[in-house]
Amino acid sequence: MGDTPTIKRRGLLLVLSSPSGAGKTTIARRLIDADPDISMSVSVTTRKPRPGEVDGRDYNFIEADAFKRMADENELIEWAQVFGNLYGTPRTPVEAAIERGQDVLFDIDWQGAQQLSEKMKHDVVRVFILPPSADSLEQRLRSRAQDPDDVVRRRMDAAADEISHWPEYDYVIVNSDLPTSMEGLTAILAAERLRRDRLNGLTAFVREMQSHL
Amino acid sequence: MGDTPTIKRRGLLLVLSSPSGAGKTTIARRLIDADPDISMSVSVTTRKPRPGEVDGRDYNFIEADAFKRMADENELIEWAQVFGNLYGTPRTPVEAAIERGQDVLFDIDWQGAQQLSEKMKHDVVRVFILPPSADSLEQRLRSRAQDPDDVVRRRMDAAADEISHWPEYDYVIVNSDLPTSMEGLTAILAAERLRRDRLNGLTAFVREMQSHL
Repeated sequence: MGDTPTIKRRGLLLVLSSPSGAGKTTIARRLIDADPDISMSVSVTTRKPRPGEVDGRDYNFIEADAFKRMADENELIEWAQVFGNLYGTPRTPVEAAIERGQDVLFDIDWQGAQQLSEKMKHDVVRVFILPPSADSLEQRLRSRAQDPDDVVRRRMDAAADEISHWPEYDYVIVNSDLPTSMEGLTAILAAERLRRDRLNGLTAFVREMQSHL
Repeated sequence: MGDTPTIKRRGLLLVLSSPSGAGKTTIARRLIDADPDISMSVSVTTRKPRPGEVDGRDYNFIEADAFKRMADENELIEWAQVFGNLYGTPRTPVEAAIERGQDVLFDIDWQGAQQLSEKMKHDVVRVFILPPSADSLEQRLRSRAQDPDDVVRRRMDAAADEISHWPEYDYVIVNSDLPTSMEGLTAILAAERLRRDRLNGLTAFVREMQSHL
């Protein structure tokens, strides 16, 4: 052989959703660290930076009127209001990544996933991460901080609501242990990169081959 | 943690198609050897056994009238006539495997893949294997035996015809080197096993979890 052709492909948008406390943030970070061909989506937000947050890396921090303008110009492919602050995903860098064959990871909830799917269709791959049990979820939500019971209760309700949307996702990973979950997610990404409809260089590749047969 | 729930899933039907000379048979054999959860589909055929072939392992060897009866009773989910012999895939063992959560591998051409997809719908995962170049394909078709040029020419034409059907498949692997192709195919299988619509035990699993939240 010797010849290893590279087939041009479209990038994909990998959405991870889960109730908080299911381990999603750790999984997302590990994937980004392990794979140079996928990077985290950088949102715009009207929230003020927290200590340690870097503008352009963690978020692009913008004013409310700039956010509104982006929304009006259809430049946000999903957005949400959380505790009075606006968060959104700009369209231009995402579309540029897809064209370059670079993948983008989204850590968003079911509402963001729905908006993204409507706008970006088959470029979106949706993965839902479930905790292995209600007990493990409660433990993780409690151990997060020394919070009063009613705060934990509210978090559990929010988790139950998020979980109810698992049927809207393409893949489901039950996060019983991190290495197995990483293997599953890595396989999903590797497989989706081999999907015929993303391999937009194949038409030319096959045509060239056919011309020599 | 500690609890590693097993979610019941449907088995899937993995179809490998390629022009002969692209390395498909080696790939199929390696996959079967490496993964106990997938096994080769055993066809029925009216052809006589060749030396070394075992009835029930390589094929189920049957008479023409038995074949015809199976076809009439809609017991064949795909069939074809090749050099005057009939080959077909019985429905019952395939459906039983799907229900058990066992995967089945099919080494069939585009016509078989089409029939199987029509009958078995979303249980089918179609992978097309391409040679890395026309040259490598011709080399493999030639090295196979000391055949006259017109025999090689006919094989090349058949290969070109098979290749023209790549757009009907879900995934495409360019078989430049075997380990990379195996990685790709293994990822496809692992990912497809995590597809939400195959995880038919999830509904009960989530309902049970929700009841404790």
